[in-house]
Amino acid sequence: MDDDSSTRIATGLRTWMRTAAPGAQLPSTRELVAQHQASPVTVQRALRTLTGEGLIESRPGVGTFVRAVRTARPADYGWQTAALRSPPTRIQSMPSAMRTAPNDVIALHAGYPDRELLPERLVRSALTRAARGDAALGRSPAAGLPELQSWFAHELGSATPVGVTPPTPSDVVVLPGSQSGLSSIFRALVAAGQPLLVESPTYWGAILAAQQAGVRIVPVPSGPFGPDPDELARAFGETGARVLYAQPNYANPTGAQWPTTLHAQVLDVVRAHGAFLVEDDWAHDFGITTTATPVAAHDDSGHVIYLRSLTKSVSPAIRVAAVIARGPARDRILADRGAESMYVSSMLQVAALDVVTQPGWRTHQRSLREQLRSRRDLLVNAVREHAPRAGIEHVPSGGLNLWVRLPDGTDVGRLAQDCERAGLVIAPGGEWFPAEPAGPFVRLNYAGPNPSAFPSGARILGQALG
Amino acid sequence: MDDDSSTRIATGLRTWMRTAAPGAQLPSTRELVAQHQASPVTVQRALRTLTGEGLIESRPGVGTFVRAVRTARPADYGWQTAALRSPPTRIQSMPSAMRTAPNDVIALHAGYPDRELLPERLVRSALTRAARGDAALGRSPAAGLPELQSWFAHELGSATPVGVTPPTPSDVVVLPGSQSGLSSIFRALVAAGQPLLVESPTYWGAILAAQQAGVRIVPVPSGPFGPDPDELARAFGETGARVLYAQPNYANPTGAQWPTTLHAQVLDVVRAHGAFLVEDDWAHDFGITTTATPVAAHDDSGHVIYLRSLTKSVSPAIRVAAVIARGPARDRILADRGAESMYVSSMLQVAALDVVTQPGWRTHQRSLREQLRSRRDLLVNAVREHAPRAGIEHVPSGGLNLWVRLPDGTDVGRLAQDCERAGLVIAPGGEWFPAEPAGPFVRLNYAGPNPSAFPSGARILGQALG
Repeated sequence: MDDDSSTRIATGLRTWMRTAAPGAQLPSTRELVAQHQASPVTVQRALRTLTGEGLIESRPGVGTFVRAVRTARPADYGWQTAALRSPPTRIQSMPSAMRTAPNDVIALHAGYPDRELLPERLVRSALTRAARGDAALGRSPAAGLPELQSWFAHELGSATPVGVTPPTPSDVVVLPGSQSGLSSIFRALVAAGQPLLVESPTYWGAILAAQQAGVRIVPVPSGPFGPDPDELARAFGETGARVLYAQPNYANPTGAQWPTTLHAQVLDVVRAHGAFLVEDDWAHDFGITTTATPVAAHDDSGHVIYLRSLTKSVSPAIRVAAVIARGPARDRILADRGAESMYVSSMLQVAALDVVTQPGWRTHQRSLREQLRSRRDLLVNAVREHAPRAGIEHVPSGGLNLWVRLPDGTDVGRLAQDCERAGLVIAPGGEWFPAEPAGPFVRLNYAGPNPSAFPSGARILGQALG
Repeated sequence: MDDDSSTRIATGLRTWMRTAAPGAQLPSTRELVAQHQASPVTVQRALRTLTGEGLIESRPGVGTFVRAVRTARPADYGWQTAALRSPPTRIQSMPSAMRTAPNDVIALHAGYPDRELLPERLVRSALTRAARGDAALGRSPAAGLPELQSWFAHELGSATPVGVTPPTPSDVVVLPGSQSGLSSIFRALVAAGQPLLVESPTYWGAILAAQQAGVRIVPVPSGPFGPDPDELARAFGETGARVLYAQPNYANPTGAQWPTTLHAQVLDVVRAHGAFLVEDDWAHDFGITTTATPVAAHDDSGHVIYLRSLTKSVSPAIRVAAVIARGPARDRILADRGAESMYVSSMLQVAALDVVTQPGWRTHQRSLREQLRSRRDLLVNAVREHAPRAGIEHVPSGGLNLWVRLPDGTDVGRLAQDCERAGLVIAPGGEWFPAEPAGPFVRLNYAGPNPSAFPSGARILGQALG
C-alpha cells in the first residue's frame, strides 16, 4: 500500500517538474503530506526515489529543489575505435529468450518460468530470515558456504549407485548462476583456440560463453534421444577435442532426455578419448513424466563436470548454482572463479539453502510437476489444433519448452515478425544452432505468463504459417 | 535464540551419531522436543541442517536415519593432466588479504572492514524490505536496474564541474562486485597478449584479473603521490599500451591520493596516447582527512572507465558495484558481462540502493570517517612506538591500510611467519607487486576486528624485527 502511494506521489511530482524551472523549490514535506493524504514516511520515500533518479536535490535545512540539468554536447567517441582494436569475438545481441515483452502480448519466447511457478512464500521467508542472520554481513569462502556445498554434493550423491564413490562437499564450487560456471569451465578446461564439442542445437548461453572464452565450437548433431555415440567418437577423434558440453536431461531447446543406455555409451566414448563431459543439468527440477537422472552419478573418475542451477527453480533473484568436479579440473575452475569474482554473496547462498531444505520445497516440486504437465499438454494440443503445419516431433518428458519444426522453406525471422505484429512473441530456432540451422524451427516456452492464452497464441502461429 | 537451540541440538546429534551404526534410527521429533525442551520447529531446523550435511536421511512416514556412508576408493585423476594441457597462467593461491584468521589472533592482514564499521541496521532493514518486494522474484535487465544506474550516474555526476557533460544512467553497467568488473574490462578493452599499464605496487585483485584475461602486465612505479606523468608517457610510448589501470584515491596498498594537478596531467597523457584510464575508485567511501575526487569527473570524452563498488562500504554480502563508461567501450564491457553472468540479482541491487538512499547512510558515513581516523591514528602511533624500525613513510588521508617499509634485507615471508607464531597476522607486501617488489614491505589494515589490540600487534611486529 505504502509502496503504491509513494509511486503515485513520485509520478505526480515528475509531471509537475516537466514544466518547472531548474532550481525551482518543491512543496515542503508537510504540504505534500496534506496534498496526497499520505504519511511523512511515504512522502520521504517518493523524494528519495526522485533523488536517486537525479531529478531533485535536497539542501538540508533549506528545502528540496529541481536539479539543474546541464546542457550536453553531442558525444564523439570515435577515437575509441582504434584503441579497442577488433573484438575478440563477434559481439552478440541478447537472444530472444532474454527479451522483456510488454504485458499485452502472448509471450512464448521466455527462458525463465513465470512467477506463479516459483516457490514465492518459501523465497520470501528464506530471504527475510537470511536478512536477520550472519549472512547479511558476512563473506563466504571462495568455494561457497560449507552447508550449501554439502547440499549440492548430497543431491548428486543420492543418485549415485552402489559401487560408485559419491562426490564430497569439497568437490563443489558454488557459483553466482550457471552462466558464470559455463564461462569458467570453458576458460579453465578448454582454453582459447582449442576445440569444444557441443550438441547441435544447444543452449545459446553455452554458445555465448564458448565464444567469450575464444574456444573453437564443433557441433555434433543431436536429436530427441541425444547424440549418436559413433558420431561423437568420430568428432573426438577428428578434432582432438578433450571436452564435450551436453544437456542429457530435457535439453534446451529440444527437450531431449538421453535414454539410460546412452549414459554408459557416452561415458565410454568420453573415457576412451581422455576427455571431459560437461553435464549441464539445468532442468533437474523440471521433470514432468520422468525424473532427471544425472550422467555424473555414474562417474567417480573425474570425467564428468556437473553443473546444477537453482536460479530457474528457486528464484531468478537468488542466483545460485554449483559445479561439481574432481581433481585438478576442480582446482582450475575454482582458480578461475577466484579471479573472476572471488566469492558468491552469502546472503543468497543461505537463502537458497533455506528454500531447498524446507519441507515445503518437496510440496512445491510436486505441484510444479503437475503445473508443467498441464501447461505442456495445453500448448501441445493448441498447436496441434490451431497450427497443424507446425510439427511437434517430440513431446518432452520434462523441461520448459516445445521445439517445433516448421514447413521447409519457412522464413523464420519473417514469421516471428508476423506473429509479433499479431500479438505473439516467439523465439526463432536459429539462436540455438552453433552453425547453420538444421531446418526452420521455433522454440515455444510453456512456462511463461498466462497459459490461458496458449490457444490464441497457437491460432496466431497457425495463421502466420498460412 | 531459536538458532542457538537448533545448533545445540544438531551438535548433540552429531556426537551421538559418531558411535551410531549407519542406518540407525534417530529419536523421533517428539522425543527430541522433550529431551531438549525445544519447539518442534527448532528440532526440525536441526534435522534439516544434518540432512543438508548428508549425515541423516528421512523416509516420510517411517522416521529419520543415520545415512549409510559408502566406502571410498583412493581417487586417481592423473588422466586429467593431459586433457587439461598447460594452464593459461600460473594458478595463484588466494593472497593473505583473503585469509580467514582464527579469532584468537590479532588480524592486521584483512582486505575487508570489520562488521562494526558496516551500516548493519540499514543493511538488515533494506534486505528485509527487498524480501517483501518484486525484487525477490524478479529478473534485472542486463545493465542493471534503472534506479540503481541513475544513482551511480548521479554520484559521479555530482562531482562533475561546469562545462563537463555528466554521465547518463545508460552509461552505467551494474556489476556483481568490482572484481567482475576488472575481469570484464581487461577482457573487453585490452584483449589477450596486449599490454596493460598498472601502478606498481597495485591491487592484487587487479593483477589476478589481468593474468586471467591473459594480458601482458607492464608496471609503472607509483609512490605516495601517484605515478610520474613523464614515466607514464614513456611507458605508453614504448609499449603501445592503450589502457592504464590505477587507483587515484587512497590506493591499495600505499594509501596514495593523487594531487588534483596530477589528475589533469594523467588525463593529458592518456588522451595523447588515444588510451583509456581504468579508474578503480574502490575507497570512495573511506575518506579520512580528505574526500575522494574521481578523475572521471573531469572526462566526458570516454577516456576514463570508472569503477565504483559498494561491497566494502555497504556489506560484503551485498555484492554490488558499477562501471561507468561511454561509447563502444561501454558496449563491449556490457557484452562481456552478458556472456559471463547475464544479469545481477535484483534482490541485491534493490537492497544496495535502499541503503545508500536512506538518510541514515550519510550519518553512517560521518561516523565511519571518525572511526577510521581514530583507528588509523591508533595503529600509526602503536607502530611508531613499538616497532620503530618499521617505517611509515606516508600517513594515508583515507582508505583502510598502512603501507610499511621494513629495514633493507628483511626476509618478509619469514617475518610474517614469526609474527603469526606470536599471534599476529600480517600481509607480506610482495603480493601487491606485479613484478619484483621494490623493497621489503608489509600492509597493515586498521579496519579489522578489535582495534584495542593494535598496540600488542605493533609490539609483536617490533620484537620480530629485532
